[in-house]
Amino acid sequence: MTADWIAVDWGTSQLRVWGMAGGRVLAAASSDDGMGRLTPEGFQPALLRLIEPWLTEGRQMPVIACGMVGARQGWAEAPYRPVPCAPVAPGLLMPVAADPRLAVRFVPGLSQRKPAADVMRGEETQIAGVLATLPNFDGIICLPGTHTKWAHLSAGEVVSFQTFLTGEMFALLAGQSVLRHSVGASGWDDAAFAEAVADALTSPARVSARLFGLRAEALLAELAPEIARARLSGLLIGAELAAARPYWLGQRVVIVAADGIAHAYAAALAAQGVQAELLPAEQMTLAGLTLAQAGDRP
Amino acid sequence: MTADWIAVDWGTSQLRVWGMAGGRVLAAASSDDGMGRLTPEGFQPALLRLIEPWLTEGRQMPVIACGMVGARQGWAEAPYRPVPCAPVAPGLLMPVAADPRLAVRFVPGLSQRKPAADVMRGEETQIAGVLATLPNFDGIICLPGTHTKWAHLSAGEVVSFQTFLTGEMFALLAGQSVLRHSVGASGWDDAAFAEAVADALTSPARVSARLFGLRAEALLAELAPEIARARLSGLLIGAELAAARPYWLGQRVVIVAADGIAHAYAAALAAQGVQAELLPAEQMTLAGLTLAQAGDRP
Repeated sequence: MTADWIAVDWGTSQLRVWGMAGGRVLAAASSDDGMGRLTPEGFQPALLRLIEPWLTEGRQMPVIACGMVGARQGWAEAPYRPVPCAPVAPGLLMPVAADPRLAVRFVPGLSQRKPAADVMRGEETQIAGVLATLPNFDGIICLPGTHTKWAHLSAGEVVSFQTFLTGEMFALLAGQSVLRHSVGASGWDDAAFAEAVADALTSPARVSARLFGLRAEALLAELAPEIARARLSGLLIGAELAAARPYWLGQRVVIVAADGIAHAYAAALAAQGVQAELLPAEQMTLAGLTLAQAGDRP
Repeated sequence: MTADWIAVDWGTSQLRVWGMAGGRVLAAASSDDGMGRLTPEGFQPALLRLIEPWLTEGRQMPVIACGMVGARQGWAEAPYRPVPCAPVAPGLLMPVAADPRLAVRFVPGLSQRKPAADVMRGEETQIAGVLATLPNFDGIICLPGTHTKWAHLSAGEVVSFQTFLTGEMFALLAGQSVLRHSVGASGWDDAAFAEAVADALTSPARVSARLFGLRAEALLAELAPEIARARLSGLLIGAELAAARPYWLGQRVVIVAADGIAHAYAAALAAQGVQAELLPAEQMTLAGLTLAQAGDRP
């Protein structure tokens, strides 16, 4: 295999790499060496463990990385670019010192001061991938995940965005709170999810009142764990949709889909009359990194 | 010391015992042997570690316990009593097998099926303590804690109640989510708390939108950790107050105060024109256990 360059998606919990020829994937590898478990000295060895077989002595390999690797707690801090701006600006990649066989550069994240402080790292690359896939896209991109992002795109720029802790809150409540006794680790119930989304959208105040009810109903009425799971997800996603209404109401919406949760967002939006388009997350990441790499070639 | 009986408050994380003469405390002790870390066989030894010095050979000591000790995962399961009912009913204490020197009985918790499933274990005893302290009390009792309870009392009975996960959610978000980097472990800011409560009450939907902002503002504008802490608490308590409005609006409210968080609830309610009375939690527990013990004497 002779890769032209290496694409890297380096998040908090995972490191994923691809050996690339232009926009084509030649090889892929991944590990659990996410930013969250590495000290600054640990990044280069973690990267080499995966890509060493793809390197050739005497040739410097371009490596383009997005994600939390550029955070303050990462390999090196890549300053945020303030919105409104294009999601990825070639020529603005940030180099870090590395093995002479490597030329590692980061895609900077985005920041927003108004209307509310917000930041992203990694999603800007997927947004660039959406723009590469759907040229001239104007509308809303929803990126579900631990920290779900909603971004408003217009004329090739991110105009504004907003982050929700929904995914992380679900994991904490389902896995570590008293609800863990009642919420299944798997399983799903579409009707329970839809009812909870609708209730949270109608009355966001009721969400905090309904959470403990999952535990109580399990104790008193043997609420099934998969129903509790879908209902918890529905309450939290419904609360998010209530707050994000200005983003999706009457808009064209693209969901960047990584897993089952993207389909839950799509179902919740469909119940509100919004038929979102789904685009695969990994492909969007690679399209965005390809764009950054191509534009950044000297 | 010759105690008549022993009062026990056995929660998820703590075991607290008092050697009593009637309603008077002769001695007190506590340990971290909460229900959460004990198997059924571990309860009696954990209790004896604290109270053995207070026992006399040949005399059976009455022990009255409230709290999670009576949960399904506790020493033995004490069935819930359904509301509406008096918070504590003498004669309904549940005995468990024990050392011949002990006559251990549990105060049963309360359950509710309508309008929403809910349960409590331990708070019913504090509510009984409030009724013992304020005879003929009609109104609302708020018991802030990991799982805050709001109870409607009328004619000596608990008519209805509702539980909120607010305290547990605060602990998870402040201690384990991405917000942990931005929310101080201590410190407070009254103005930030009041603003966040008011915002959450005005627009509960905004709460989920504002949480990640605590992290973003810390990164972009060096938000002080104590302000982030007070704001997070204010957002969560404000969301709870929005959902619990039917409980407190225009009502007489008593807060059973265990720590600083009770004062935060009092401040939040005062901003809404409700001057809550504060009663000390430990005293309410002891007054409730004393009532149960006195009424239950053969």
